[in-house]
Amino acid sequence: MNRSPLAPKTFAELPPIAGVDLAVAGSGMKYQGRNDMVLITTSGDSAIAGVFTQSDTAAAPVQWCQSKLASGFNSTNGIAIFTNAGNANAFTGAQGLVDVGVICGNLGARMDIDPDNILIASTGVIGEFLDTDCLIGRFDDLLDSDKNTDTNWRAAADAIRTTDTFAKGAAASARLGETTIQISGIAKGSGMIAPNMATMLGYIATDAAIAPELLTTLLQDSNRRSFNAITVDSDTSTNDSVFLIATGKAGNPVIDHPSHPDLPAFIAALDSVMQDLATQIVRDGEGASKFITIDITGAKNNDQAHEIGLAIANSPLVKTAIAGEDANWGRIVMAVGKAGLGINQDDISIAIGGVQITKNGACRADYDETPVAAHMKNAEIDVAVAIGDGDGSARIWTCDLTHGYISINADYRS
Amino acid sequence: MNRSPLAPKTFAELPPIAGVDLAVAGSGMKYQGRNDMVLITTSGDSAIAGVFTQSDTAAAPVQWCQSKLASGFNSTNGIAIFTNAGNANAFTGAQGLVDVGVICGNLGARMDIDPDNILIASTGVIGEFLDTDCLIGRFDDLLDSDKNTDTNWRAAADAIRTTDTFAKGAAASARLGETTIQISGIAKGSGMIAPNMATMLGYIATDAAIAPELLTTLLQDSNRRSFNAITVDSDTSTNDSVFLIATGKAGNPVIDHPSHPDLPAFIAALDSVMQDLATQIVRDGEGASKFITIDITGAKNNDQAHEIGLAIANSPLVKTAIAGEDANWGRIVMAVGKAGLGINQDDISIAIGGVQITKNGACRADYDETPVAAHMKNAEIDVAVAIGDGDGSARIWTCDLTHGYISINADYRS
Repeated sequence: MNRSPLAPKTFAELPPIAGVDLAVAGSGMKYQGRNDMVLITTSGDSAIAGVFTQSDTAAAPVQWCQSKLASGFNSTNGIAIFTNAGNANAFTGAQGLVDVGVICGNLGARMDIDPDNILIASTGVIGEFLDTDCLIGRFDDLLDSDKNTDTNWRAAADAIRTTDTFAKGAAASARLGETTIQISGIAKGSGMIAPNMATMLGYIATDAAIAPELLTTLLQDSNRRSFNAITVDSDTSTNDSVFLIATGKAGNPVIDHPSHPDLPAFIAALDSVMQDLATQIVRDGEGASKFITIDITGAKNNDQAHEIGLAIANSPLVKTAIAGEDANWGRIVMAVGKAGLGINQDDISIAIGGVQITKNGACRADYDETPVAAHMKNAEIDVAVAIGDGDGSARIWTCDLTHGYISINADYRS
Repeated sequence: MNRSPLAPKTFAELPPIAGVDLAVAGSGMKYQGRNDMVLITTSGDSAIAGVFTQSDTAAAPVQWCQSKLASGFNSTNGIAIFTNAGNANAFTGAQGLVDVGVICGNLGARMDIDPDNILIASTGVIGEFLDTDCLIGRFDDLLDSDKNTDTNWRAAADAIRTTDTFAKGAAASARLGETTIQISGIAKGSGMIAPNMATMLGYIATDAAIAPELLTTLLQDSNRRSFNAITVDSDTSTNDSVFLIATGKAGNPVIDHPSHPDLPAFIAALDSVMQDLATQIVRDGEGASKFITIDITGAKNNDQAHEIGLAIANSPLVKTAIAGEDANWGRIVMAVGKAGLGINQDDISIAIGGVQITKNGACRADYDETPVAAHMKNAEIDVAVAIGDGDGSARIWTCDLTHGYISINADYRS
């Protein structure tokens, strides 16, 4: 698969995070000649939080992690996150849960970690059983201490890929009082991407010290503005998982309550990393040729703005119009209407590429399509809709719907 | 545009409905060399009901009809329904409503009908103003009594087409006591098709005598089992409208209450016509190569079954898998899960082409894909999902998502 034309030019520089090591290995279970397993471990006292798919058919590893990370936890004895790519261990019934246990049991015995502190993420085909013998057969590689280093972020980003055309990483730093903290993160995802969450896995680590209960809130809030604000195809995966680790090695005074003075700087850095990763997933959307930013303002509240933005972003007719570089703003009107939120259409104002198109529920008398048609030729398309009903706003990112999406998905499994 | 490979071989025989005349004419407003206007008129004492899009951006003619047909009405002086194709008169603000008035005023004066008894439906591009001079300039043709006959159903079905590749008609009869009644109907629709309702127009007439309030209930109920049970692309139009006329000319004792003994036979005939028309719209879905029937059983209630069926039918990943003739039942699992209705996945049972694939939340040990793979080669695909949660059921119809859909919609307007 060719690298997406919307991909960043290079993989970001990801600084090591003190207290976090990463190892990669190849199991040969589905893919040959490449790494498809990742083990992320923390040393000493670390906090961890997770957010997961809200699907009713959540995969076995997600069920396991949800039970462990309902409100985040702290481990003084280290945490491990195991990931495999190529098989989602989803809709695998009792066998799937036993397979989770077998992996935790094996790793726990060999790493001397409580199996309750081992988390698992899987991505790939739904409905096939894991070959745990095959995976475990290569755990020697994964546990080889020479290969388990804090510099393996890029290798890990490559190992978790499935249909991704490029590896995804992002980093940021922040000053918390006298201390500089680092955040590094990787993600994968390309199709079956919709909120709650995208078909995606994300791993973010920071050396900042943050209390585990607060860490969960921070992850949920930032997730709403990043991975839950993207959609490729409206389909929600069985396996979406995002983990946030805080090792505390930077030495800042622990952030342990919502009004802590260092919190705004940390949130800004976390948002930066998570939005960077989330938009990279959209840029790798299956078949994508356009990256689309949708800004909703003037909604009754932020939730309503979010819902309207997603109605536009998930509309096949909007997405195909943009693929065809057609300034067909009538389809945006349709999508706003189908959200069914009781909006007064006469108050809706639509702009594309910064050009106001409508006024008082109709096309402006002086509307000139020329600059909008020119904007549609760009790889980055901006849509703005003002609702005229309040102060609610949201930003949603998506991509267009092209022949490439059909080609990839009409013969992905066969 | 080539005729859809899923189209019926021929246009149905539509018997005249006593008391209903149809006329067609070409305005030249958008299309040249074809008819694009239809006028349906009733003589004498007729009842009429309508159901319409639930979009917040409903078009001007829909706003007008909704205000007139909130609970159906009876006219002793005749009713007229005017339709134009090529321009939706949607998101046209105050001007759009004035244009509705101009058409009603002109037709009312010339036909000697109260403008309140004139209904309008429009279909086509959103956001452009009607050229009412152009339309009215050809009303002489439309009002020419020689051309206004009860045999014009086929001509009318052709005149309302936009992206449709074939004209859609259906008929049925029923014995009500000693009387045989007839039902004839036509529809249009191909894309922007989703419940509440499809991007579609439908006109159904019967010579049965039915009280107007009851007629509205009958239309709403049957609509739920037909036009609201189809989806092509999940996008909801600004202009969906379905009208049901009952002229009473058959002479049956008027059906005027829900427990009338003749009602079941009438409902069966009405369902037959509306489901036939609705599935013809799916068979003409933009780019469709497969006609898909999704049966949900064992849901908590019928509404939940309906919602699960639509989650499957609207999933781009399910639709592309079927386009690729891939028995990828994992994507059905994903779609059931994303509906987010609190289902226990261990109780879900999935069958394709009558072959049970899953049991106890996983693939059956003895599952043989061979007959399912063979079924996927057919033009008609059957999916059945049992939820194991109650008695609710629903049947939903959709089509696959192909390169044809992208081709049609990436350059429809330009």
